[in-house]
Amino acid sequence: MERIILEVDGKEIEVPKGTPLGEVFRLAGVQDAIAGRLGDRILDLQTPVREGGKIKPIRKGDPESLEVMRHTLSHIMAQALKEIYGYDRVHLGVGPTTEEGFYYDVEVEGISIREEDLPIIEERMRQIVSRNLPIVRQEVSKEYALKLFESLKEPYKLDIINRIQEGDVISVYQQGEFVDLCRGPHVPSTGMVGAFKLTHVAGAYWMGDASKPMLQRIYGIAYWDEKELEDRLRFYEEVKRRDHRKLGKELEMFMIDEEIGAGLVIWLPKGGIYRKVLEDYWREEHLKRGYQLVYTPHIGNAKLWQKSGHLDHYRQNMFPPMELEDEEYFVKPMNCPFHIAIYKSKVRSYRDLPFRLAELGTVYRYEMSGVLHGLMRVRGFTQDDAHIICRPDQVDDVIQETLDFAISMLRDFGFDEFKVYISTKPEDAIGSDEQWEKAESALKKAVESMGLEYEIDEGGGAFYGPKIDVKIRDALGRLWQCSTIQFDFNLPERFDMEYVGPDNRRHRPYMIHRAILGSIERFTGVLLEHHAGLLPFWLAPVQVRVLPVQERHVEYARSVANTLREEGFRVEVDERDERLGAKIRDAELQKIPYVLIVGDKEMQDGSVSVRGKREGDLGKMSLQDLLSFLRSANTKRQNEALHRK
Amino acid sequence: MERIILEVDGKEIEVPKGTPLGEVFRLAGVQDAIAGRLGDRILDLQTPVREGGKIKPIRKGDPESLEVMRHTLSHIMAQALKEIYGYDRVHLGVGPTTEEGFYYDVEVEGISIREEDLPIIEERMRQIVSRNLPIVRQEVSKEYALKLFESLKEPYKLDIINRIQEGDVISVYQQGEFVDLCRGPHVPSTGMVGAFKLTHVAGAYWMGDASKPMLQRIYGIAYWDEKELEDRLRFYEEVKRRDHRKLGKELEMFMIDEEIGAGLVIWLPKGGIYRKVLEDYWREEHLKRGYQLVYTPHIGNAKLWQKSGHLDHYRQNMFPPMELEDEEYFVKPMNCPFHIAIYKSKVRSYRDLPFRLAELGTVYRYEMSGVLHGLMRVRGFTQDDAHIICRPDQVDDVIQETLDFAISMLRDFGFDEFKVYISTKPEDAIGSDEQWEKAESALKKAVESMGLEYEIDEGGGAFYGPKIDVKIRDALGRLWQCSTIQFDFNLPERFDMEYVGPDNRRHRPYMIHRAILGSIERFTGVLLEHHAGLLPFWLAPVQVRVLPVQERHVEYARSVANTLREEGFRVEVDERDERLGAKIRDAELQKIPYVLIVGDKEMQDGSVSVRGKREGDLGKMSLQDLLSFLRSANTKRQNEALHRK
Repeated sequence: MERIILEVDGKEIEVPKGTPLGEVFRLAGVQDAIAGRLGDRILDLQTPVREGGKIKPIRKGDPESLEVMRHTLSHIMAQALKEIYGYDRVHLGVGPTTEEGFYYDVEVEGISIREEDLPIIEERMRQIVSRNLPIVRQEVSKEYALKLFESLKEPYKLDIINRIQEGDVISVYQQGEFVDLCRGPHVPSTGMVGAFKLTHVAGAYWMGDASKPMLQRIYGIAYWDEKELEDRLRFYEEVKRRDHRKLGKELEMFMIDEEIGAGLVIWLPKGGIYRKVLEDYWREEHLKRGYQLVYTPHIGNAKLWQKSGHLDHYRQNMFPPMELEDEEYFVKPMNCPFHIAIYKSKVRSYRDLPFRLAELGTVYRYEMSGVLHGLMRVRGFTQDDAHIICRPDQVDDVIQETLDFAISMLRDFGFDEFKVYISTKPEDAIGSDEQWEKAESALKKAVESMGLEYEIDEGGGAFYGPKIDVKIRDALGRLWQCSTIQFDFNLPERFDMEYVGPDNRRHRPYMIHRAILGSIERFTGVLLEHHAGLLPFWLAPVQVRVLPVQERHVEYARSVANTLREEGFRVEVDERDERLGAKIRDAELQKIPYVLIVGDKEMQDGSVSVRGKREGDLGKMSLQDLLSFLRSANTKRQNEALHRK
Repeated sequence: MERIILEVDGKEIEVPKGTPLGEVFRLAGVQDAIAGRLGDRILDLQTPVREGGKIKPIRKGDPESLEVMRHTLSHIMAQALKEIYGYDRVHLGVGPTTEEGFYYDVEVEGISIREEDLPIIEERMRQIVSRNLPIVRQEVSKEYALKLFESLKEPYKLDIINRIQEGDVISVYQQGEFVDLCRGPHVPSTGMVGAFKLTHVAGAYWMGDASKPMLQRIYGIAYWDEKELEDRLRFYEEVKRRDHRKLGKELEMFMIDEEIGAGLVIWLPKGGIYRKVLEDYWREEHLKRGYQLVYTPHIGNAKLWQKSGHLDHYRQNMFPPMELEDEEYFVKPMNCPFHIAIYKSKVRSYRDLPFRLAELGTVYRYEMSGVLHGLMRVRGFTQDDAHIICRPDQVDDVIQETLDFAISMLRDFGFDEFKVYISTKPEDAIGSDEQWEKAESALKKAVESMGLEYEIDEGGGAFYGPKIDVKIRDALGRLWQCSTIQFDFNLPERFDMEYVGPDNRRHRPYMIHRAILGSIERFTGVLLEHHAGLLPFWLAPVQVRVLPVQERHVEYARSVANTLREEGFRVEVDERDERLGAKIRDAELQKIPYVLIVGDKEMQDGSVSVRGKREGDLGKMSLQDLLSFLRSANTKRQNEALHRK
């Protein structure tokens, strides 16, 4: 029998090929391991080891151990479902682990699992855990597997088996009566899992394909430690509370309606004024920094997308074509080709560079309906797009100013933690070594000079140039990709972009794609979740609401509102015939930064009583004091800290 | 023989049916007439009169006489072409009159007529005029006509004859050797035409159908009086000088490129900043007037357009569908259905009305490529769209405020002459009489209370509601359709729009579509032509350019520019190494409102020498004086008169 050499915990041993990992550990004197890592695979104790190499034992508590027990929990959940709804009626799809737990895609004949059912399933899972059933691995032939899962009435498993190549290892795992097609790894018995909780149910197409049946995906989270689980559950509660879809509805900022179009955002009046304020700010900042604003169409002739290469490389992300007088038109997935056309509309001199074009360009990209998610993943979105075309000797300065611009703008929205990633030259790159070196060096210099935390993704760049990605950390510690500064050595060639140098000759410029917010839609989603709906004062759709205590205070309330409006503040008067308490509560719910209460006393001395959503009661103020208070609240950075929880 | 009774110049006479009009006039003692009007038809002297009625003689100089002689000129031009290029090689399409002259669509085998050829054709026309050939009318059978035009090798004429119904009168007119299929009317001989000039050549598809051959359309203008012709030619020169396509190129405001997409406008940086200023102004004015700003997608699910009725009634103007996961999407031709969805996103109370939604919504409509024209007729344009939803008792006020808003905004762009048209209930209208009466009365009241000149187009309204159209008169006296205020009794029904009244019941609101500028693209075209490119100061892409006389004045020039920029003005410094004269000339060509010349003297005393594009030399000013001068120039109305030529 063939033998293999393994190194376990620094000790070298030789075993017959196919020895189960548990036996290997026993031979090597390794204790308490529940699995092991060989190369990039995690094997459980029953899995036969078929190749030599280093094996790292995985013990309970090791980060990798979570994956093993979470995987087992997905089987336990599947078993619980079978026990509750009947072995014949539950059909299993796939049941992988996630970053925090696990899920299983299942079909239960005639039944739709609801969130209310989760505690019952959980209860049954705990029973299965307490039975501490041994988990047994068996390797079988394809023919056997097909017969087995045919008899188990598992059509989706059959679908998977049919895709497995003849000769590949097929394994099944069994615990009690429950058998599942699975590659593992698993803990040795159902009693060896950690703390867990089922969290929610969602729909998921089989194989992610909308033409296939929709299964139900049941999610759970799991940690070894009960306390850690509780922390994570609290985190999820907070995530739920901050869900931008819920906030967007409560604040009446936007709506998405499948009848109108999946993944297409309609900005309601409150969202509309927010977006206007954001866009005004964005445009003014760009003008200050020497950008030129342009507007380009939302559709373009196929010839354009042919030339840009999008039809060859990006078509699966584009909406299908529209046929018109023997030509094809596409809604744009990108603004670049239009901006290049603008650059090329006249001869550019070296004196015209850097040439900075900026546009809030609304693009449309095809995403499968299954992956659409609120504002975070949509089919139509507005990029805060810019293209900078410059000379080689300007590259350093341009990258520096662009990164500085990005960070400065993100700060204005109340973000103050950033993580930067630089992606460098991949194997199949185009462009000269000189271009790549100059560009990568500019990216690094800029990041370093700004003292930003960064990582380098060696070889992770696109084939056409290196880039910087800026992620922002939100109030819950999550990282969100926002800004990108991306070199492009491809399009200037394809479109033959040039400038006339001081030598009167034509030269090829550098071109940089750049977005700071990424997309207005997605950024708004992140912003809402970061601030839990309480937007920075300067962005709030309604900044101040005036609450007259009685009917007789309405006129004074209106005059206060008009005074503030003249100063440019966005103000409402709540003239409803409601009690003050109700008016205050509604303003709270709508997360209005300041309410001004006006009754007899305030009317008499021309003052208002101010209540801040963040600060609580701020007492009485004269109109003059109120104005200077609000003016200072309206500056972008100073009360940044307040915007964080 | 049947006889008919005619009233000519108040005199009644009886003649045999079919008597030529010339004979009728002779019998009635009418002198000098060249044609006559019977009902709404103009007959020439040779045309047989076949029905009784009042006949008005038309004499040279009467407005209607122009049409007769212009028609003859189109035949004379056709004859000239045949004589020059050969009777067999010139194939005639149609040759009607226009408001100012005539054209003929022709095909000349193997030759493309150029503008340079027009004087030669004109010269030959004058020869034909001086020959004073009698023009002879003949009525023929369809069979005869087919044979005749077959032998004349006139395929387009055959196409027309084949469309004529059996039994209809077919007439041909002959002058010398030249024969044409024509209904008339014509003057009696080629010598009896007025002053004329051929102006230009354009392409025109046969029958306006892009799948048919492209003919050449040769245009001429004609008046009785040489002086009148010259006036009109000067007018055309001016029209040409002000052509927005030429200006847009010179001022680098926009470009349209067929490779990118016919009828799709790309706003270049100078146009981009202009559009930003315009849009900022537009949004601020709307907020001031109680509108709520919204943003909606550029594409929508076919279901939406089905429900709105666009797919049934408007599809030929829409771009073709995009197929996506078994559903169809269309780029939007209108914003209305989205705005209605916003209205319906929550229950609206009578207190929420009037509900005013506004959007700069970019829509896409299919137009045949042949009719596209610069910014005036495009396939993608941004409507300055709004929808007002109100209660019946608010209709008067809403119309009044909307019309006032429209006129006030148009004035801000330098327009001060308006013509208003009210279109009322047509035969096949929907909606109740009460709705129509209330709506029409509101429209009339509003127009009258504002003292605007107006006309009523009785029965000219759309089937779903009456409307006001506002046309503006430009500096050349031309009228341009801009604002529309349109009632809609259809969509509120289709979409079941409601509000809850004080009675707690659901009621149907009134809905009004409204645009003031119409489309930003077309309005910009009109604006450029009206101002001959010299935009109102507040809208000029570059408001001020600073010209340093020498290199050593550059720094001072920059500091002047920065001072103005801090005040919000758009300023450039011309730092090129050019002579002052050249810099001044370039600024003139680019129609920059003010240039500031700075040399030694200005640097010494901290001043600038100001030159206005309109005003000429304005002498030296201190920076303080300059600022207050520019501030006053920047207000919208006060120097309105200056903006007119």
